Amino acid sequence: MSWINEKGPARDVVLSSRTRLARNVAKYPFPGILPEKQAKEIAEKVRKSIQDGKSDLDSDFSFFYIKDVPALEQQILVEKHLASPDLMKSPEISALALDSSEKVTVMVNEEDHIRMQCILPGFQMNQAWETLNHVDDVIEEEVDYAYDKDLGYLTSCPTNVGTGLRASVMLHLPALTANNQMNAILQAISKIGLTARGIYGEGTEALGNIYQISNQITLGSSEEDIINNLTVACRQIVENERMARKALLKFNGIQFRDAIWRSFGILCHARVLELKEFMTLISQVRMGISMGILPNINTEVLDTLMTEGQPAGVRKKAGRQLDEMEVNIVRADLIRKAMKEIINKETNS
Amino acid sequence: MSWINEKGPARDVVLSSRTRLARNVAKYPFPGILPEKQAKEIAEKVRKSIQDGKSDLDSDFSFFYIKDVPALEQQILVEKHLASPDLMKSPEISALALDSSEKVTVMVNEEDHIRMQCILPGFQMNQAWETLNHVDDVIEEEVDYAYDKDLGYLTSCPTNVGTGLRASVMLHLPALTANNQMNAILQAISKIGLTARGIYGEGTEALGNIYQISNQITLGSSEEDIINNLTVACRQIVENERMARKALLKFNGIQFRDAIWRSFGILCHARVLELKEFMTLISQVRMGISMGILPNINTEVLDTLMTEGQPAGVRKKAGRQLDEMEVNIVRADLIRKAMKEIINKETNS
Repeated sequence: MSWINEKGPARDVVLSSRTRLARNVAKYPFPGILPEKQAKEIAEKVRKSIQDGKSDLDSDFSFFYIKDVPALEQQILVEKHLASPDLMKSPEISALALDSSEKVTVMVNEEDHIRMQCILPGFQMNQAWETLNHVDDVIEEEVDYAYDKDLGYLTSCPTNVGTGLRASVMLHLPALTANNQMNAILQAISKIGLTARGIYGEGTEALGNIYQISNQITLGSSEEDIINNLTVACRQIVENERMARKALLKFNGIQFRDAIWRSFGILCHARVLELKEFMTLISQVRMGISMGILPNINTEVLDTLMTEGQPAGVRKKAGRQLDEMEVNIVRADLIRKAMKEIINKETNS
Repeated sequence: MSWINEKGPARDVVLSSRTRLARNVAKYPFPGILPEKQAKEIAEKVRKSIQDGKSDLDSDFSFFYIKDVPALEQQILVEKHLASPDLMKSPEISALALDSSEKVTVMVNEEDHIRMQCILPGFQMNQAWETLNHVDDVIEEEVDYAYDKDLGYLTSCPTNVGTGLRASVMLHLPALTANNQMNAILQAISKIGLTARGIYGEGTEALGNIYQISNQITLGSSEEDIINNLTVACRQIVENERMARKALLKFNGIQFRDAIWRSFGILCHARVLELKEFMTLISQVRMGISMGILPNINTEVLDTLMTEGQPAGVRKKAGRQLDEMEVNIVRADLIRKAMKEIINKETNS
């Protein structure tokens, strides 16, 4: 079980809700200039704060050094949004604590000494914040955080100083993208201190029309304000996306259905699928399901498939080395078989 | 039953073999300047020569004036290659005799007084010639043909003078088209008095990669030579196409399979299909079946579908007036349902 394959509120548009806190240990240099010996001390401190035999996190969390994690599994952690690519860059000193439901992770010696996050399926910002706040309290019982009474929590990068909180929502916005409304939305949210980026693929390109909306400012607002501001804005975007989908169906019905069914047909039959096309197709199918155009596949099943179709996910399924062309072939095979299975299950249930 | 849905030799590449004879009735002006009264006399002569109560054609042929055929059915006769568009232009005087198997037709008062044709499934030129030669003999028993002992049979257009014979083979050449070999082939056949054109769609464009190869010259060769020349050339083209298909599969295997399965997926799922795209897709699927890449659908079943997907075929299935957009929607519906039925039958057999 993880956030990916679990039901969640407003899952038709919202893939996940995420909170992240940046924390550093007092009297230690920031990771960029941290000697290896001290880095290991910090990792041990964090490990003990979780696995101390008394906190309610203890039984549920595993803790490991990145150097002990195979390269492919490292990439899968990234593709599942459970760890950052940066964590994998200093495997000798970096570590990860992970709860059994794959919803809470604590990264050690990434950009900051401690970066903890909670990721939940669908739209549940408050729950994601409360859960993470509790984890923060548990760690703080044993770890002395770097804190300034005027600035708040001190972080490696000034943009995280203050609350150290980054809250984000992963949104699937194919209709707003198709209607060229995304630019206006991105401008509007930047005025209220929010920012957006594509979540899969390179740079800001939004593969599969999936955007991550998050707060830009961590200083000068309370945690509750940050969560609330993001929640209100995203609730509005979710409504806009739903309206845009309905409008597409109403005013462009047959072409809209046609495009969705074609995407479905290609996903079910192609023998070669590049990542970018795969994301475009599954984005169309995801929208088609939520609108009742396609068979009633569970969205979370499809989102699991989206993760499994990422490069490392495909390589893991293959269980062997693959060049890029082979990845595209194995991806097509894996998606095709999964779609067949999903549809058969749907038809027989 | 007709040539379309019947098995035939080399059906993987050859849709049909056709012979056509142009004949005129002695002492009558050619149709272009033929008074209506005389045109009707000719039609009656032809009708009686077939339905004379003694020829072996009598029981098997129906005869009707084009003015009595609904417009939609007229177009379907054209799409099935049983009559020409030109025949429909003078409905008051033009007529058609048609055998029950839809293989032999006799057009009256088209460009010539009499244009008879035999069309057979797959590659069987000799049989198509022998059958037609017999029909010609039967009609000639009662109709006095315009004939010049030096020139041969006289026809409205000089290009048909002599034997009056046009023999043609309808070939499906997707691999040669994909490999850009068609230009060289068209040049080569023109040197031996053959010509090619696309068979569906406007002008010379070969929708669905289907080409009709025929003799250009009707004068100066015997009927047997014409048939033989065409047969030898087409046999070579058929072999070239088969080799090109194998080469595509060998050297470009996965992309080739991918393209065919995608075409199949779209054909099975699209909600809007324009004629041109439909022909491209069904061309790919036809090749995929013949190469064992797709389920073993009978080619003649697919060729029936190709005919039913033509504009008049779609309008007939709908049973009501359709604008162009509606034709594309109904086409997609009809093809999708037919494909589903075909595949279910295949799976259960």
